[in-house]
Amino acid sequence: MRKTNLGFLVAGLCCVPVLIALIVMTGAPGGSVSQAAEAKFGIVVHGGAGTLKRTSLTPEKEAAYRDKLSEAIRVGQKILRDGGSSLDAVEAAVRILEDSPLFNAGKGAVFTSEGRNELDASIMDGLTLKAGAVASVTRVRNPISLARAVMEKSENVLLVGAGAEVFAKAQAIPLVDPKYFFTQERWDELQKDRERDKKPKSEASPAPNEKHGTVGAVALDKQGNLAAATSTGGRTNKAFGRVGDSPIIGAGTYANNQTCAVSATGHGEYFIRLAVCYDISALIAYRGMSLKEAANAVIKGKLTKLGGTGGIVAIDKDANIAMPFNTSGMYRGYAIGPNPQVVFKIFED
Amino acid sequence: MRKTNLGFLVAGLCCVPVLIALIVMTGAPGGSVSQAAEAKFGIVVHGGAGTLKRTSLTPEKEAAYRDKLSEAIRVGQKILRDGGSSLDAVEAAVRILEDSPLFNAGKGAVFTSEGRNELDASIMDGLTLKAGAVASVTRVRNPISLARAVMEKSENVLLVGAGAEVFAKAQAIPLVDPKYFFTQERWDELQKDRERDKKPKSEASPAPNEKHGTVGAVALDKQGNLAAATSTGGRTNKAFGRVGDSPIIGAGTYANNQTCAVSATGHGEYFIRLAVCYDISALIAYRGMSLKEAANAVIKGKLTKLGGTGGIVAIDKDANIAMPFNTSGMYRGYAIGPNPQVVFKIFED
Repeated sequence: MRKTNLGFLVAGLCCVPVLIALIVMTGAPGGSVSQAAEAKFGIVVHGGAGTLKRTSLTPEKEAAYRDKLSEAIRVGQKILRDGGSSLDAVEAAVRILEDSPLFNAGKGAVFTSEGRNELDASIMDGLTLKAGAVASVTRVRNPISLARAVMEKSENVLLVGAGAEVFAKAQAIPLVDPKYFFTQERWDELQKDRERDKKPKSEASPAPNEKHGTVGAVALDKQGNLAAATSTGGRTNKAFGRVGDSPIIGAGTYANNQTCAVSATGHGEYFIRLAVCYDISALIAYRGMSLKEAANAVIKGKLTKLGGTGGIVAIDKDANIAMPFNTSGMYRGYAIGPNPQVVFKIFED
Repeated sequence: MRKTNLGFLVAGLCCVPVLIALIVMTGAPGGSVSQAAEAKFGIVVHGGAGTLKRTSLTPEKEAAYRDKLSEAIRVGQKILRDGGSSLDAVEAAVRILEDSPLFNAGKGAVFTSEGRNELDASIMDGLTLKAGAVASVTRVRNPISLARAVMEKSENVLLVGAGAEVFAKAQAIPLVDPKYFFTQERWDELQKDRERDKKPKSEASPAPNEKHGTVGAVALDKQGNLAAATSTGGRTNKAFGRVGDSPIIGAGTYANNQTCAVSATGHGEYFIRLAVCYDISALIAYRGMSLKEAANAVIKGKLTKLGGTGGIVAIDKDANIAMPFNTSGMYRGYAIGPNPQVVFKIFED
């Protein structure tokens, strides 16, 4: 009896490598042995949507936007390629855009009607549905990192104003003098807007080159986790204390591993009223739409019908992406998979 | 020619009353001549959910809650019965609860960790999807009326902090000395909570009778328009600047004539992460669920699974109502139709 059993055992053990080889070949029909190296991953970034004109964009300016947005994408892509988390990737990408004067977030934030800079940001983890956000902060260099600290190191989701800065100090998040956010270009935009406000509406020309310069990033990492992050300086000449959609989970930012990660840019009030980012996730979950169908239904359908302008970038759990907008342009780009080649676009394809 | 035309005109005019009578009779097959009198309408109000205990609620206290909540419902119901708008009804109902020290909103707001009162509120119009909200205000007697002014008299949806109070002044919305919000009972709750914080977590007893005392109202008017309103004083001992779901459209408040109106009360962070109020609307719109099915799926399903506590009140376009919660109790009540009889409940049926 004992010998017979041993015989079976030896025969069985001999089969194991064959079985493993069969499983690997079946599981990885593309040829690669390592399942992990094949895991899909990618990042999509936006630098704001608005009434951009091809004619008023100089080649130098376009190159500057391309370079900075591409840098953000490459940094995020490297984190993902190295096995890092989607949260790390979107935070790193958004920080780069916050530190650039080109975008309406962080350093390049626009001015409120009172001539100040008020910053909003939010981040969401698609695995846990945890989220963090800050609004109306005036001294935080990188609001997206404060939003992440709110998510990971507090019981809260949203902190506003001075209270958010008290928390920033406690977390050793760098604060700067509000003068840090002064840029001549944004200041001049405020003066032009104030001049327009003085004229009767019939005489005033519409805001030229009006931009919703909010920045944002969405990513899928090799572990299959989605994340979204958004940061903004609000709207030029906005009312003191006005908060748009960027720090509102569901409106300006949403991520859920079961569906997608979304970051928005646009006329925030409309994005709040339609819960734009959550709605895209809901259409996938409840209607079985693809990411592209859901994103188009909300941006080109509902948002446009209600009179709102702007766009979103999104990525789903299979690394499909969508970047619809209903303005004349949106700074956007992406890198999908191990190839670090960045695609950058401003106008419609 | 002229005479002939006049003859047709006279003949035509004679037919008008007959035609009107025919239209009215066809339009109101139920027998009543007036279509308006038959239109469905109703209001549902909540005064917060939490770990309420039957044993610690004295008959006097229960009667006090019943009386005040019933007063709010009756005032809202009268507005609806008289043909007023659902927006007027929910604002009036919430104002009554804000003026009472019994509820954690307005006068009865709880204290933050710094011993101050910070108030949040929001309102939404289901017809236009317009919305208004305020957060972290400290001197506004009725935050719900300020939220309505933001919706109707500004281009914004959300104003926070001092900026919201600057707008309140410009709109002649009554401001009060922050001392107005002092109540001994809430102050004592803060001291108890601070004592608990000093003890190691293993020794500290859970917050006794913890209440999410947010108030809210939803209504359907005779014109078929839905509205929702929510107001809160936040959480006892909350961090300075923390904002919960109450002023977040989609999380704490939502209304859409095509689906339903919803107002939430509970641990706000979970309601934000799940976009609870918008999600109920989305399940009706995209999955064809009834209001009750959708409300239960979100509160008893998703919210409970994620570890969040609280509840919602909701009404749909056909005057169906839902009031699910996953805590031991929720102050709630309603009046549907022309009969002003109020139903009031605290615990499960």
